[in-house]
Amino acid sequence: MRPVYLDNNATTRVDPAVVQEMLPYFSEQFGNASSMHAFGASVSGALKTARERLQALLGAEFDHEIVWTGGGTESDNTALLSALETQGGRNEIVTTQVEHPAILNLCEWLQKSRGIKVHHIPVDARGRLDVEAYRRALGPKTAIASIMWANNETGTIFPVETLAELAHEAGALFHTDAVQAVGKLPIDLKNSEIDLLSLSGHKLHAPKGIGALYVRKGVRLRPMIRGGHQERGRRAGTENVPGIVGLGKAAELALAHMEEENTRVRALRDRLEKGLVQRIGNAIVTGDQDSRLPNTTNIAFEFVEGEGILLLLNKAGIACSSGSACTSGSLEPSHVLRAMKVPYTAAHGAIRFSFSRDNVEEDVDQVLEAMPPVIEKLRALSPFWSKNGQTQFAPSYV
Amino acid sequence: MRPVYLDNNATTRVDPAVVQEMLPYFSEQFGNASSMHAFGASVSGALKTARERLQALLGAEFDHEIVWTGGGTESDNTALLSALETQGGRNEIVTTQVEHPAILNLCEWLQKSRGIKVHHIPVDARGRLDVEAYRRALGPKTAIASIMWANNETGTIFPVETLAELAHEAGALFHTDAVQAVGKLPIDLKNSEIDLLSLSGHKLHAPKGIGALYVRKGVRLRPMIRGGHQERGRRAGTENVPGIVGLGKAAELALAHMEEENTRVRALRDRLEKGLVQRIGNAIVTGDQDSRLPNTTNIAFEFVEGEGILLLLNKAGIACSSGSACTSGSLEPSHVLRAMKVPYTAAHGAIRFSFSRDNVEEDVDQVLEAMPPVIEKLRALSPFWSKNGQTQFAPSYV
Ligand SMILES: Cc1ncc(COP(=O)(O)O)c(C=O)c1O
Ligand SMILES: Cc1ncc(COP(=O)(O)O)c(C=O)c1O
Repeated sequence: MRPVYLDNNATTRVDPAVVQEMLPYFSEQFGNASSMHAFGASVSGALKTARERLQALLGAEFDHEIVWTGGGTESDNTALLSALETQGGRNEIVTTQVEHPAILNLCEWLQKSRGIKVHHIPVDARGRLDVEAYRRALGPKTAIASIMWANNETGTIFPVETLAELAHEAGALFHTDAVQAVGKLPIDLKNSEIDLLSLSGHKLHAPKGIGALYVRKGVRLRPMIRGGHQERGRRAGTENVPGIVGLGKAAELALAHMEEENTRVRALRDRLEKGLVQRIGNAIVTGDQDSRLPNTTNIAFEFVEGEGILLLLNKAGIACSSGSACTSGSLEPSHVLRAMKVPYTAAHGAIRFSFSRDNVEEDVDQVLEAMPPVIEKLRALSPFWSKNGQTQFAPSYV
Repeated sequence: MRPVYLDNNATTRVDPAVVQEMLPYFSEQFGNASSMHAFGASVSGALKTARERLQALLGAEFDHEIVWTGGGTESDNTALLSALETQGGRNEIVTTQVEHPAILNLCEWLQKSRGIKVHHIPVDARGRLDVEAYRRALGPKTAIASIMWANNETGTIFPVETLAELAHEAGALFHTDAVQAVGKLPIDLKNSEIDLLSLSGHKLHAPKGIGALYVRKGVRLRPMIRGGHQERGRRAGTENVPGIVGLGKAAELALAHMEEENTRVRALRDRLEKGLVQRIGNAIVTGDQDSRLPNTTNIAFEFVEGEGILLLLNKAGIACSSGSACTSGSLEPSHVLRAMKVPYTAAHGAIRFSFSRDNVEEDVDQVLEAMPPVIEKLRALSPFWSKNGQTQFAPSYV
């Protein structure tokens, strides 16, 4: 049986066409883009093409609004650190309770070590941002608001256009961690007020180790990594030519196929979601049903441990996730589900299935078949679960 | 005619065996190393092998002394920034006048924006460090001494073992930018006092966009990039699995062939160097003849512009460099040659030829043939040069 990969929010398979595009840049056109000779010149053309392709995917007005980085985390860190330096006198950050650790852990450190005040805007039970609280948190002290475009665990989409406008009314910069949005949602930055946007190659079928930070023309960027004059002095270090070329190709593919693939992927996701909820009792779809990435479903199976589900599914050749990849290893429910106040006994059994254009109908069939006995088996072992489907003990809500 | 690539200090060709080793990790074993399922597990094994291979090349005692980064610049920046955080109360850096911009530009910024005092130790006309000045600069305020192992422009090697001991006597950490040394010189970190060491994959036939920072066990490291718990919390961001696998393989190849290749490469380099000096008058080999990388020669051709040489050589299919790739674009002699007080008229005509195991005897033949007419042609146009080989004007020494 073909292994089933439904963990595309953790990372995606590099598209073979992307690998093909990258290949010549390892051992043939291997020059340093900064070099003055033919080996250097041949790669600068490739970098330009890649930049234009990503520009098109983002709907950016200028290709030099793109700064290549080593990944989403570096982009996120760069955006926040830069804003604190360029927004003289402003020393507060407004963000959410459900950001990726690339934002949250940086903020925690900024709070501890630099006395930066960080506002963590809450979400409701469906994962929707409390826009009123956001508005209240913004003020003359806000250096930057950093709000993710789409949540990696639940797929919930935030209204970033509106949030960017509100940030600007307070004189703050607006950054969005769009790592899960780019390649999955139409983006048109030239008609938005977003100042900074992070993305990561490996979430859209490009390789790991390459990412980008969009920086609107006119927005000052202080580099985080200092050295040579690459990227117009905004990110030092020899350019990762194959990675950049790969991300450019991936952007081109994403743009070309987005509409049709979104329709197809959404149908797969919906069939899986409906099928699981139908077949298995006490299963709750978390996240916002109305405004959600087409590829993501996060389902909380009550009275079981997510890790147990993952192990048994893994034996059945099915790969998915019980939270963001970065926090796995811990048995605590994720910070996202806690922020949504998903009942404790459900949050523990939350499973994220995330699709991509590599998935097919049979993947859904396999999960629909494998899942009911897995849950049944685990519930049979649970002290909170009785045979007739009633809980024996009152679950503790945390 | 086969193009001649003699710019290996700028970047190297990725070894086809390295590409082969990487290939499965793009579209087959593409999992996220942090994931709990089979897709994740299969890559963690590969990461472990890569770590052990790099450990062997460095002679490190423990494999977890290696932290993967996005390149040499990131490694350099991380080392210095971390030291300033962990070495409480110490706010001085001791470095040299001839470091790479990855150190120098960071230091300049630290000086300006954070009031860090930076000591730039000078070198003599052969590029050798003034060890007495180094010793005097170290003191109770020194957080870290950062001295490159080998210079990228001239190949001059610094006595890092001794320098590390001196730093420790002052209670400072010792970091070395070994980007040009790793893969070219035997390294045995377990028998040294070096605390931190930077390297970059693309300088040793691994791809661009991957590097590492060696951190001696017991030395605290504060991450520069914050987020997920990758690399034991020392460098956040999804691991660049193909890059890491590639760097591991490149490390294995470098270690296996170092001795024989160094002998062969040194002979090629020496033949080129002697041949050029013999054939062309007023050509000065810069850098230390006694203690130098086996692959590098930097020759200053008096009364010509390096950029002119590069252009004509490029037409003849020969790629080399007139300074470090990062500073090219400017017509100023490099900071390294200025620190060595190479006479102005010579420094302007300095050309770096840097070899690797990809070079062959014919490469040397081609350069030996192409170079004399190139220099002759350019000198014929120079106002400082007269037909009989005497200067018409006294050169200005800067
Ligand atoms: C929303 C979000 N932001 C940031 C990141 C970090 O990206 P990377 O691991 O590529 O640095 C991720 C992925 O893990 C993510 O899902
Ligand atoms: C001595 C030295 N240090 C640091 C670097 C920076 O490495 P990278 O460009 O891979 O970040 C280089 C290469 O350009 C170098 O030669």
